[in-house]
Amino acid sequence: MEVTPADTLEIKQQLADAIRMLARAEIVDHSGHGSARRDGNSFFVNSGASTRGTLTADDIVAVDLDGRLVDGAARPPLEFPLHAEIYRTRPDVHAILHTHPRWSTVLTSVGAPYQVVCAQGALLGDVPVFDSPLSVNTREMGQQVAAALGRGSAVLLKSHGAVITAANVVECFALAAYLEENALRQYHAMQVGTPYVFSAAEQQIFRERLATPGLFKKTWDHYFSKL
Amino acid sequence: MEVTPADTLEIKQQLADAIRMLARAEIVDHSGHGSARRDGNSFFVNSGASTRGTLTADDIVAVDLDGRLVDGAARPPLEFPLHAEIYRTRPDVHAILHTHPRWSTVLTSVGAPYQVVCAQGALLGDVPVFDSPLSVNTREMGQQVAAALGRGSAVLLKSHGAVITAANVVECFALAAYLEENALRQYHAMQVGTPYVFSAAEQQIFRERLATPGLFKKTWDHYFSKL
Amino acid sequence: MEVTPADTLEIKQQLADAIRMLARAEIVDHSGHGSARRDGNSFFVNSGASTRGTLTADDIVAVDLDGRLVDGAARPPLEFPLHAEIYRTRPDVHAILHTHPRWSTVLTSVGAPYQVVCAQGALLGDVPVFDSPLSVNTREMGQQVAAALGRGSAVLLKSHGAVITAANVVECFALAAYLEENALRQYHAMQVGTPYVFSAAEQQIFRERLATPGLFKKTWDHYFSKL
Amino acid sequence: MEVTPADTLEIKQQLADAIRMLARAEIVDHSGHGSARRDGNSFFVNSGASTRGTLTADDIVAVDLDGRLVDGAARPPLEFPLHAEIYRTRPDVHAILHTHPRWSTVLTSVGAPYQVVCAQGALLGDVPVFDSPLSVNTREMGQQVAAALGRGSAVLLKSHGAVITAANVVECFALAAYLEENALRQYHAMQVGTPYVFSAAEQQIFRERLATPGLFKKTWDHYFSKL
Repeated sequence: MEVTPADTLEIKQQLADAIRMLARAEIVDHSGHGSARRDGNSFFVNSGASTRGTLTADDIVAVDLDGRLVDGAARPPLEFPLHAEIYRTRPDVHAILHTHPRWSTVLTSVGAPYQVVCAQGALLGDVPVFDSPLSVNTREMGQQVAAALGRGSAVLLKSHGAVITAANVVECFALAAYLEENALRQYHAMQVGTPYVFSAAEQQIFRERLATPGLFKKTWDHYFSKL
Repeated sequence: MEVTPADTLEIKQQLADAIRMLARAEIVDHSGHGSARRDGNSFFVNSGASTRGTLTADDIVAVDLDGRLVDGAARPPLEFPLHAEIYRTRPDVHAILHTHPRWSTVLTSVGAPYQVVCAQGALLGDVPVFDSPLSVNTREMGQQVAAALGRGSAVLLKSHGAVITAANVVECFALAAYLEENALRQYHAMQVGTPYVFSAAEQQIFRERLATPGLFKKTWDHYFSKL
Repeated sequence: MEVTPADTLEIKQQLADAIRMLARAEIVDHSGHGSARRDGNSFFVNSGASTRGTLTADDIVAVDLDGRLVDGAARPPLEFPLHAEIYRTRPDVHAILHTHPRWSTVLTSVGAPYQVVCAQGALLGDVPVFDSPLSVNTREMGQQVAAALGRGSAVLLKSHGAVITAANVVECFALAAYLEENALRQYHAMQVGTPYVFSAAEQQIFRERLATPGLFKKTWDHYFSKL
Repeated sequence: MEVTPADTLEIKQQLADAIRMLARAEIVDHSGHGSARRDGNSFFVNSGASTRGTLTADDIVAVDLDGRLVDGAARPPLEFPLHAEIYRTRPDVHAILHTHPRWSTVLTSVGAPYQVVCAQGALLGDVPVFDSPLSVNTREMGQQVAAALGRGSAVLLKSHGAVITAANVVECFALAAYLEENALRQYHAMQVGTPYVFSAAEQQIFRERLATPGLFKKTWDHYFSKL
């Protein structure tokens, strides 16, 4: 599958919009990054130095899985191996977001496992925790994160952030928002009691019903309206 | 009672404004919905796919109590039975809002009953909890929610959201805001002690004095000024 | 002391600005009110129906201490006796704000006394609590609140709100902001430990140094810049 | 090292921007202040009366280490000795910010030591607490704060605020933001468990990798985009 010039522009704009929306929602801070698969051996990603809150398509470059620039002039983020190693091992993944979300990260800081406490939270399934707060800036660490992710949709990085994967940028954005919304509700419930954790059957129902392009797009449009 | 074209336009605009204001206040997220009775057998409701934060009167359709479109072209929300079954059993209800409020929902997540801890909170009276987090997307579930609501003004849906009913859209909006404001105060008080719960006599006084069209309109105007 | 027409306009504008700033800071909700003494027997106050977030000088009326309109056409708030009875017993008071602040009120909800935990908080001194959540809408209740206030600067109303008094509107605004800022810090400290309470000597130093027109005006300008 | 007129204008603008950004982030309130070294015996600082949220280069004056005006007409903050005594004892320091951050200060209020719980937090190193809530408005107190700071980057003032020092204004701003971000995460983690504290080795890695002009500038640009 080769991306056409028109595809390229659309994907760059989607990535820029996704990261801008996450910055506005304070799920991405000054140093989060997002990517979209370009082909079997390369991906688009926002440059390391770009300003997340005002990102445009011009801030998106493309690199191959070894980090060599194949489109654009600016350098990719130092953590590009996080993206590369997941794309290498997960051909089904076409978009990845690396966020620094407040509530999801607080859970990892105290060792509390992510639990499904609201409907959208079920779409993430089990969310493992990568047990190191260090930056994912080597191929070896990228491989370890990819291994921790396994076949799942997301992995939390202890006291650091989150990695969310999906079949496209819109879905990936929605899942990134759902992950943090669920964590927010879990965290606040934990302060005053024990939150109700959805049963396996309930989670299954929501995974079947809420994982639709229409609902992902609606979530996207909702956040876009806040820009 | 038949609604005239002028009524129709006003009601559509009121619904759109109510949902926009609740989205701004983060009481409605990407998927809340609101309705207003059209006649004995139909109601207005925002379309399922509409963007809540930028809703206009054009996003409001009308469906009969079985979900068949009678005005507009877009599909109603999948949870339309929630509205339909309440309108069927409660002829006094002319407006319904289904919100996803943070603090009210956290209370249901930990099994803490809603308690009246501020003046406006008294207007909701007792607020039962519907004991399922699943979407209310069948007639049977709609009937169960309507039964849980009974003769009351509001019902909470466990780990999911809230349903607020009233004689008109403005009052319904005000009650939706009051419910969450009371829950916010209850939640935060619970973190540092035991909140003072208003006595039955105090609650009665506030129900008599604060349930006026003028105060509901003032609440509406206050939130409208924040748009 | 008679107020001139120019004074009148300035005071009305100050009141409108003070309430708008407190609404923006969510210290005043849809129903807070503020007043300024007009002469020995009357005061300016925002009308009961006015929209707090968009208040203008035209929303300010004047009433005598029995609530009879002496300037303007709109009705004063139902709680005007709160203002009237304080003006009657405290000739030194020239401005009163009645707010509905979140954190100060949560403290009263759980019975935790206001404690001075930051510099500006010392300017309020001891803050008594009026032990009723009911509206202050009769002369008798106004007298009780005035008695609870005594010679102090502020009194909290249990599970309801706050009343702040001062020699002028600018100072009154600053104290209203300081009260809630101190309560916010006290509340959040209480969640993770026992906050350090300023010693009597420390409080005295801050009362002497921070109670200056220049600092009150700077606080006013700071909030004004957020409008 | 003498600063040229062009340097002067740039430094004044940087100081004004840094304080405006911190005011927007609610890390500086109506009375925080910031300074930049001018030469061995003087520094730039925002005037005491200036409005922090709308600061411009015109609000920046220069004073010598004894507080005498050497540029501009407005008075420096009463706490200028805080700046002067640090500049006197730390020739490596070229910028100082005095903030009133919510979460960092709550930690001092309950006696909880600052702990490194996120990557950027490591850049502050150990953060001592100056054990007095009083204003730093005498040479003696300035000396005591300078002594508490020692060779470090930051010192917290009990129940009062923070002092952050750096080699330039951009770095100083970034450290001020990191300090509060780390405190926010520490505070929220403490509410539901025991936060993971970074090991000495992990802290060392982040101090080596994250203390770069590029990352400080990226943090600056991120906050600037929110103005």
